[in-house]
Amino acid sequence: MPKQHRAQLTRRAILTAAATEFDLVGYEAAALNAILRRSGTTKGAFYFHFSSKEAVAEALVADYAAGLAELRREWLERDRDPLSTAVGLTVEVARRLKQNVVLRAGLLLACRRVGAVTDGWDGLIDRLLHESAEADQLQPGADPAAVARVAYAALVGTHTVDPDFADLPERVAEAWRVLLAGVAREGELRL
Amino acid sequence: MPKQHRAQLTRRAILTAAATEFDLVGYEAAALNAILRRSGTTKGAFYFHFSSKEAVAEALVADYAAGLAELRREWLERDRDPLSTAVGLTVEVARRLKQNVVLRAGLLLACRRVGAVTDGWDGLIDRLLHESAEADQLQPGADPAAVARVAYAALVGTHTVDPDFADLPERVAEAWRVLLAGVAREGELRL
Repeated sequence: MPKQHRAQLTRRAILTAAATEFDLVGYEAAALNAILRRSGTTKGAFYFHFSSKEAVAEALVADYAAGLAELRREWLERDRDPLSTAVGLTVEVARRLKQNVVLRAGLLLACRRVGAVTDGWDGLIDRLLHESAEADQLQPGADPAAVARVAYAALVGTHTVDPDFADLPERVAEAWRVLLAGVAREGELRL
Repeated sequence: MPKQHRAQLTRRAILTAAATEFDLVGYEAAALNAILRRSGTTKGAFYFHFSSKEAVAEALVADYAAGLAELRREWLERDRDPLSTAVGLTVEVARRLKQNVVLRAGLLLACRRVGAVTDGWDGLIDRLLHESAEADQLQPGADPAAVARVAYAALVGTHTVDPDFADLPERVAEAWRVLLAGVAREGELRL
């Protein structure tokens, strides 16, 4: 196996082990030794990649931000109608968060940092709802800015009140369904 | 002034000073000396009432929980229809949180404790929405449990994304307006 590839596998194993430990016992309580044991790597290998537990947390946040940015780009490039993009993208984020402990750890660690919680999602949802209104997907009289604010609050609230993420995709879909019942034009909401 | 009344004023002054300090610099960073200075009390008077900064935080959480429980009781005793009760009570809580730094500090401190965040609000909103359905205030086909879950998530999210609480009453009213647009029977939503 080429050296660089092996190094990447080790880095990935450390991130997954750390995310799993954070998930189980929380960031503060997670011990470096437990992360090493779980990842099957040596202290030397660990310190080749990371200077500390904090550095692992930084990497998880960066990977999470990059992963979601990539997903956003993919969805926006698909060029589906704006309302389906808003709903589909956020439900897919929820599904990935449920399935992927590394992504989940990144989100939870990002939320601990003041001001980092939005990551531009409020702006994106606002833009997509304004575009939905322009594309005539909303009922006349619906206020896209208000709907965007409430949708964003509901999405943030959904993973605050369901910290184990087990039902997150269903809850996010449900939030859109309830929110858009009186907002989307008939036939524009496919959920 | 009777001794007991004076002691109560001192206790209240300490709680208000501590809440203001927590509001300005956060709980962790708030120094006991700054709280004393702001409250105009002596160290002796402080320790007569509280053993530590942590004890002040405990008292703020307890006062917050008692204050909201009282407000809930008042609203439920008014015996208004369940949908107006859900909306009116939560908007009034938002208004009080905006106006009252002591209450606000109690909420933020309560949210720091795992499991303490709900305080039974999810159950109360669920009950009021089921009662709204029984009272024929919701459109046929509306799922009261789903609406309650989304409403609760939106309310929690609303003060997560607006940590200074300045617009909280307007945001809570807006959340209900958007949420209930396709859920409440015509004329049942007065906002």
